Amino acid sequence: MPKIPHHPGNSLIDSPPTIQWDTDHIKIIDQTLLPSALKVIELRSVSDVVDAIGRLAIRGAPAIGACGAYGIVVALDEGYAAGGSNSTIAAKDILAKAAHLIGNTRPTAVNLAWAVERVQTGAMLGTSPEEVRSLALSIANDIFDEDRAACDAIGTFGAVELAEHKTILTHCNAGRLATAGIGTALGVIYGKAREGQEVEVFSSETRPLLQGARLTAWELSMAEIPVTVFPDSAGSSLLASGRIDAVIVGSDRIAANGDIANKIGTLSHALAARAASVPFYVAAPTSTLDPHTATGAEIEIEQRIPEEVEGFGDCRSTPVGVAVWNPAFDITPADLVTAIITEVGVLRPDYGKSIANALELASLANPPTPEEQQ
Amino acid sequence: MPKIPHHPGNSLIDSPPTIQWDTDHIKIIDQTLLPSALKVIELRSVSDVVDAIGRLAIRGAPAIGACGAYGIVVALDEGYAAGGSNSTIAAKDILAKAAHLIGNTRPTAVNLAWAVERVQTGAMLGTSPEEVRSLALSIANDIFDEDRAACDAIGTFGAVELAEHKTILTHCNAGRLATAGIGTALGVIYGKAREGQEVEVFSSETRPLLQGARLTAWELSMAEIPVTVFPDSAGSSLLASGRIDAVIVGSDRIAANGDIANKIGTLSHALAARAASVPFYVAAPTSTLDPHTATGAEIEIEQRIPEEVEGFGDCRSTPVGVAVWNPAFDITPADLVTAIITEVGVLRPDYGKSIANALELASLANPPTPEEQQ
Repeated sequence: MPKIPHHPGNSLIDSPPTIQWDTDHIKIIDQTLLPSALKVIELRSVSDVVDAIGRLAIRGAPAIGACGAYGIVVALDEGYAAGGSNSTIAAKDILAKAAHLIGNTRPTAVNLAWAVERVQTGAMLGTSPEEVRSLALSIANDIFDEDRAACDAIGTFGAVELAEHKTILTHCNAGRLATAGIGTALGVIYGKAREGQEVEVFSSETRPLLQGARLTAWELSMAEIPVTVFPDSAGSSLLASGRIDAVIVGSDRIAANGDIANKIGTLSHALAARAASVPFYVAAPTSTLDPHTATGAEIEIEQRIPEEVEGFGDCRSTPVGVAVWNPAFDITPADLVTAIITEVGVLRPDYGKSIANALELASLANPPTPEEQQ
Repeated sequence: MPKIPHHPGNSLIDSPPTIQWDTDHIKIIDQTLLPSALKVIELRSVSDVVDAIGRLAIRGAPAIGACGAYGIVVALDEGYAAGGSNSTIAAKDILAKAAHLIGNTRPTAVNLAWAVERVQTGAMLGTSPEEVRSLALSIANDIFDEDRAACDAIGTFGAVELAEHKTILTHCNAGRLATAGIGTALGVIYGKAREGQEVEVFSSETRPLLQGARLTAWELSMAEIPVTVFPDSAGSSLLASGRIDAVIVGSDRIAANGDIANKIGTLSHALAARAASVPFYVAAPTSTLDPHTATGAEIEIEQRIPEEVEGFGDCRSTPVGVAVWNPAFDITPADLVTAIITEVGVLRPDYGKSIANALELASLANPPTPEEQQ
């Protein structure tokens, strides 16, 4: 019987949460050490927060968003302790500086900037240093809780959508280590297990940083869900073998037409799934839908440093002086996507329409604040 | 100006050959040490030969075939020195035992068993220990020379076929490190350079054993041909980007219908090439064509040990206890293959016919020995 993490409520997993607020500091699992070591570290200053996000001790757009939001509260406490608590103006100055600093730690992670801005905007309404801090914490808690709820809803919708699919291929890590909740793609896996459905996962290792081998395999093992790791290069053959019932991945940005930006390698699995007539699902909260980007061609692909590919740990594989091409993401065209599972429901082609509808639904569920309406 | 290796004739590359016979022993580059160290080791006993092939110090079906063939000569010298040179019967006993031992070192490498059997069959005609040895060496030299000539011819045909294609994607290593000559897939690259054509290569790193990052990048760098390494997962995106003019790979076995067995990950590139309308070529000698295998579905796929995927050098990435799926090869359906470049010419669909014709041509070029005809 799998140990299913679920939110809200207590986790059944014998492991600390990915991110947690504790009185006056943030606790996170240091993901750079997984799976060799499971270590919780405390972030008690702005530099702690910036460092943790920058070196990928915490990663995954939703998880980074929550961390950045709580990071503003840490910044206020740090600033007040250093003598900035004697005026509301000084408090708002601390707020603005921290929002700028933390929000730019990883410029391509949309959720981080979004979350930090949301905390800043709300906390600016405070009329005392204490109220600025309490508003910031309240909004950070909202972001955290909304992410948990979105993951849960994605798990519920996904369990219905994939009810007949037992053996699932996933890529990278879009699980509880990437969110405040049970994850997006892996949220669907946990959702299936929660419903008592049989489920088994094949996880790509996900070069260069091996989030599949290190993180997805680890968190599914902890949940006692059967998981098999394969080299990225074996995904097409695995799909052609007939052993896979469905593919499910997360996303970093979804264009208005349904084109999907996700971890490099996603496109290979989508093409192989199409060739093998296996459904290809994307799971993501509506905050990942980007109505301002018409198609995937407009999405800038982050190029990462060659060192990630040149070796692993202390082992060097590529000869010195050889060029490396190391894009972080690829674009999967909408026509390869069977459906997009969100917290407001399952979106199907024509994505231009279904994405617009989902955004409308999401805005009704989370109406803008009076500040945002101005 | 690239430094083009070419055979016959002296190599322009400032590096020892992959394999070489020297009076009474074999010299090989120990490929397990590349690219960190370029070390030539000497194989002076049967156990040296078996060990080198078994631990992949020498790899690539044609290179292993040549090594196994010379290994028989090493075995005879070793046996004679130990007192087995006083009768022709004793010599043939040494021959048979060595052929069995060396030929089974890697059972899936078809070329090894083929080469060893060819040496054994020819040398059995000797009427003295000296003649047994001289026949064995002569046939081993034939195998070596024929492989070099086949690579050269593939390079020549390939340069014509790919004359308009500058930027080439390849997978794994089918180069001079995999053959006695200039390689098959990389033979075409060197063939293009030899003709003065501009050429640039994108090499997948080729997890799990990184033959692309370690070996292809190394040998192309030595030849001063521009090479860029990318994670296997980025191949589809690279092909979709429009930067690649053609894909070329080697093969371990080609079924009678043109289905291609090759290093795991080949299928991903073939699917992505088709999606991007990029031609997908296979380069292989006619000895790789297998008329006894009707389609790719009949080809058994070797499963390799999980340890290759669980980590990288001394760094462990996959949690202990997690299952691993690690197939060595995949099957690319013939309908994704633009053409097959062999030493007797370029084969095109319908492959059932063109492969049969190529085998007929090859058998005319290398008629069976009287022994084989019996």
